[in-house]
Amino acid sequence: MQLPYYIDMIGVLVFAISGALAASDKKMYQDLFGVFFTGFISAIGGGTLRDVTLGVYPLAWVKDMNYLIFITLGVIITVLFKRVIFRLHKVIFLLDTVGIGVYTILGVQKSLQYGVNPFAAIILGMVSAVFGGVIRDTLINELPLIFQKEIYATACMAGAVVFVLLDYYDFHSDWNAIGCVLLIIIVRLFAVKYRLSLPKIDL
Amino acid sequence: MQLPYYIDMIGVLVFAISGALAASDKKMYQDLFGVFFTGFISAIGGGTLRDVTLGVYPLAWVKDMNYLIFITLGVIITVLFKRVIFRLHKVIFLLDTVGIGVYTILGVQKSLQYGVNPFAAIILGMVSAVFGGVIRDTLINELPLIFQKEIYATACMAGAVVFVLLDYYDFHSDWNAIGCVLLIIIVRLFAVKYRLSLPKIDL
Amino acid sequence: MQLPYYIDMIGVLVFAISGALAASDKKMYQDLFGVFFTGFISAIGGGTLRDVTLGVYPLAWVKDMNYLIFITLGVIITVLFKRVIFRLHKVIFLLDTVGIGVYTILGVQKSLQYGVNPFAAIILGMVSAVFGGVIRDTLINELPLIFQKEIYATACMAGAVVFVLLDYYDFHSDWNAIGCVLLIIIVRLFAVKYRLSLPKIDL
Repeated sequence: MQLPYYIDMIGVLVFAISGALAASDKKMYQDLFGVFFTGFISAIGGGTLRDVTLGVYPLAWVKDMNYLIFITLGVIITVLFKRVIFRLHKVIFLLDTVGIGVYTILGVQKSLQYGVNPFAAIILGMVSAVFGGVIRDTLINELPLIFQKEIYATACMAGAVVFVLLDYYDFHSDWNAIGCVLLIIIVRLFAVKYRLSLPKIDL
Repeated sequence: MQLPYYIDMIGVLVFAISGALAASDKKMYQDLFGVFFTGFISAIGGGTLRDVTLGVYPLAWVKDMNYLIFITLGVIITVLFKRVIFRLHKVIFLLDTVGIGVYTILGVQKSLQYGVNPFAAIILGMVSAVFGGVIRDTLINELPLIFQKEIYATACMAGAVVFVLLDYYDFHSDWNAIGCVLLIIIVRLFAVKYRLSLPKIDL
Repeated sequence: MQLPYYIDMIGVLVFAISGALAASDKKMYQDLFGVFFTGFISAIGGGTLRDVTLGVYPLAWVKDMNYLIFITLGVIITVLFKRVIFRLHKVIFLLDTVGIGVYTILGVQKSLQYGVNPFAAIILGMVSAVFGGVIRDTLINELPLIFQKEIYATACMAGAVVFVLLDYYDFHSDWNAIGCVLLIIIVRLFAVKYRLSLPKIDL
């Protein structure tokens, strides 16, 4: 099943908003350019790293201007309606979770199309979903969120592994993608609700 | 109008010098290798990221050894004549400003040649000019300069936007490039002189 | 002389172990995902950056799953046998040194095959060997090790320069690669033993 175009745009919008909001926590980082740049890198970072790793050109946001328009929209919305968005933080969290699920499975699909090995497809699916955030946090000198508490990456991995296994054993169905996106969403919501995290390793 | 080759080399030289000087502010960062590496990444970082994003190979500095020779020259000059350069810091600042202007418009031109959308061309022009500095500052664990005070990126954006608009409305003249480079230089000098910055956003 | 395939795999394994061990020094960084990710990026970061710079696709670890299997193996070994590995730290250091030597010369060879200039081949050889560690240290907010004390990069440079010179003056022998790898190993061991470092530059 191909993901409809407008869902991709919603994902870009949501990631740009969550990126712009993240920038606002850093005092030094609050001018208009910093907020736009953080929203931009959060929205396109993961997909760009995936496509550069695959060697697939031209990159989506370089070819299709709509990506940049929706990012700009997300940043403007954040700046104008910050108080409303802050009150809607549960909605944003939900949309962010949906975005992560969609981007992971999209990334796995695209990687498999280009003939990469299954293990690499899982990694590139996760990269698509989480690397925008990793680059963002690194640029603002924070330890990347995904290395800290949340079962963020683990949820993506669960969905990606199941999708690759279904593909490997030739279960091809339009529902694979939808099911795996739902799996990611459920694992993350469940983990956040019950404050789960991976076991610490006492090295 | 094509930028003459020797101006490109001067840009590389100036960026290498300013990178090597930046390394000297970090105590931990002062051995010969650190200084060379910082000069190198400052000089080629932006252009490399632009070309990898465009998928344009081979990269300039990989094909043409002169880039690396001028970078080495810049680092050697910095190490040998540090006191003189320090006294000439206004000259360096001016050359740096010229370099940023030239790299921005060069980046926009190259991007448009490869058929990217106008919005992406503006971003890639800015990336060409400022990303060397961003990578450098991130590597030495500083909050990147462009996110802090100066109207650094904004000056580049102004020039890039005007250039793209002129191109979009089919005003093709040899003077477009020169005019837009001058615009960037003037905006930056003006901003530094009057200590302008973008409005802080109270998120 | 082509490096045998199994030596490449041993290099990947050793770099994954040293990466996973490095992660364990960071308290915030100790869950299973963080340890795997650090091992992964340490093992493939340098080669990936080299190949993306050269524009050579597909990347080795994307095509050949064995890379990822050996990385996983390295991470599992680190987690299960941490105490033994800790006692074996001299062995790990030695293997790491061998790995750096091998990766440097491999990187130079590959770059020359793709027709880059000799100076760039030296840089790309060094990138192959050390950039995994640079990305890793940057992600965990440390000043990259190679900018601090050890004659780490200098050893790689020595071997790379000699290899390029031999190639440039048409000394082609199966022993070039082996000799240059040995040179890197000897310079590093010597430097660590006598606590040598490059001269600080008083800028």
